[in-house]
Amino acid sequence: MKMAVVGTGVIGNGWIARMLGQGHDVVATDPAEGAEERMRRAVDQSWSYVEALGLAEGASRDRLTFEADAAEAVKEADFIQENVPEIEELKQTVLQTIDQHAKADAIIGSSTSGIMPSELQTNLNNPERFVVAHPFHPVYILPLVEIVPGEETTHEHVEKAISIYESLQMSVLHVRNEIEGHIADRLIEAIWRESLHIVNEGIATTEEVDKAFTHGAGMRYAQYGPFLTFHLAGGEGGMRHMLKQFGPALKKPWTKLEAPELTDELYNKVVSGCEHQSNGMTMSELDQNRNEFLVRLYDLVQEYWPKETEKTHS
Amino acid sequence: MKMAVVGTGVIGNGWIARMLGQGHDVVATDPAEGAEERMRRAVDQSWSYVEALGLAEGASRDRLTFEADAAEAVKEADFIQENVPEIEELKQTVLQTIDQHAKADAIIGSSTSGIMPSELQTNLNNPERFVVAHPFHPVYILPLVEIVPGEETTHEHVEKAISIYESLQMSVLHVRNEIEGHIADRLIEAIWRESLHIVNEGIATTEEVDKAFTHGAGMRYAQYGPFLTFHLAGGEGGMRHMLKQFGPALKKPWTKLEAPELTDELYNKVVSGCEHQSNGMTMSELDQNRNEFLVRLYDLVQEYWPKETEKTHS
Repeated sequence: MKMAVVGTGVIGNGWIARMLGQGHDVVATDPAEGAEERMRRAVDQSWSYVEALGLAEGASRDRLTFEADAAEAVKEADFIQENVPEIEELKQTVLQTIDQHAKADAIIGSSTSGIMPSELQTNLNNPERFVVAHPFHPVYILPLVEIVPGEETTHEHVEKAISIYESLQMSVLHVRNEIEGHIADRLIEAIWRESLHIVNEGIATTEEVDKAFTHGAGMRYAQYGPFLTFHLAGGEGGMRHMLKQFGPALKKPWTKLEAPELTDELYNKVVSGCEHQSNGMTMSELDQNRNEFLVRLYDLVQEYWPKETEKTHS
Repeated sequence: MKMAVVGTGVIGNGWIARMLGQGHDVVATDPAEGAEERMRRAVDQSWSYVEALGLAEGASRDRLTFEADAAEAVKEADFIQENVPEIEELKQTVLQTIDQHAKADAIIGSSTSGIMPSELQTNLNNPERFVVAHPFHPVYILPLVEIVPGEETTHEHVEKAISIYESLQMSVLHVRNEIEGHIADRLIEAIWRESLHIVNEGIATTEEVDKAFTHGAGMRYAQYGPFLTFHLAGGEGGMRHMLKQFGPALKKPWTKLEAPELTDELYNKVVSGCEHQSNGMTMSELDQNRNEFLVRLYDLVQEYWPKETEKTHS
């Protein structure tokens, strides 16, 4: 496929490396002075990791071209990924340019972290082929992409977009409901806000906050998310036991975040959700699976944790 | 050393396995019917992971004894870890029993998730040797322990406690300021509350929320915490660039959590904190270090992610 990448910052360059690694032709565009050189350097720097994850047949950095003019860059593309700075008006303007010059059936994805697709597709001639496709840095390694259709996106185009992102070896999360920050960034932002409060109040340093996460919960979250993690922490009783034991903590000042009421409806959603996603694995199998993973992860991550700065314990 | 573990739920049993693996004598106590049998089964189930992480010389499950009476169980111990349910009055009562029967200089640690040490040490005869020592499930694998002294804990006893937990092959985070939920649980609780809101409002299922975390940000957090992750996402400009680009998002409704004001003071704390904890590594070195880790982690975690449930994309 012919692919175009609009905006070559950290995220745009990550998309380019991923697309090239999967054997596509890529045209990159960015109006900034020196953008091509910075982009080529970034792609070169990421290439060994792209190779380590496995190149598709015919994959080559020679299939990358640069075209400063966005209208020109997108006109032949079957698929275009937009990655300009997170300013709504700017994104709308750039998306209109793409929409006007691209083929009418080319899929357009936006990497926006938090803007809702219905807002971004408002002034497009062909809004039906537009989706939010939010990746995670580094894009050439992390598999997740959140696909969020807007009100005007058609089912057919969502399906087509999903196949394209899957063909880029990504794990697609189809977000069925628009919300500011989609899903993942809301969780990241919740951690971020609480972390800022802790530093702001002088409770701990940034390094201490980081360590509080990486050496404990962070290791768990590479494998199981917040729900399955708590399901497991409940022992044989799973999430039911967990909600009984730690449900009351929702009333305590454990964060600056106001908690929802733990209604019967929410309780049932959470418990049945965990049971469903366990997908036939027993608690004991989930538990063993986690342990085997954590032992191997611990062995691995010790090579890569940053060395702690010198400090006395007191 | 002679160690005692009071309360043999999921966390208490995790401590027992870790202590035995490090070659200590352990006396466990729990008043519940059938506690000894459940505990021995739990220790047996975790033993292969304890072995995989490496046994200390002389380590053996034969060094574990059970004593139903708490007063009796703790009287010879040099170090006692309390793990009874998260109910403040219950913990206070049990800690008083421990304090009265233990040697006057034995270190007492509490596994409490969220209660502050000054509250727990109020009625002890020897409050100076009491600390919160909050571990993470599974305790026999995850290295982090948050050590939080109370107002009456002496410096000397904090140092002694830290050496004991370090000798158990743990990564000690000395939390210098008491706060509900300590540090790590505040971050975990922030994710948890936002996750509950998302499920409560019907935005996504528990499985989708979990995937939104494990296949992206969760992989990053096993290595770098919230601060260093954003420092890296800022490209060459690091946290300075990041705060410029995403600082304004603090004003947006990206979570249900109220954000702090991004004052100059907070800005400086965060930027200099990240620079300090980089500990001489350049952005590019941090970046390469992360990439090498993520490539190996991705290879590893694919074997262990739970299989997704069947669903259509629509």
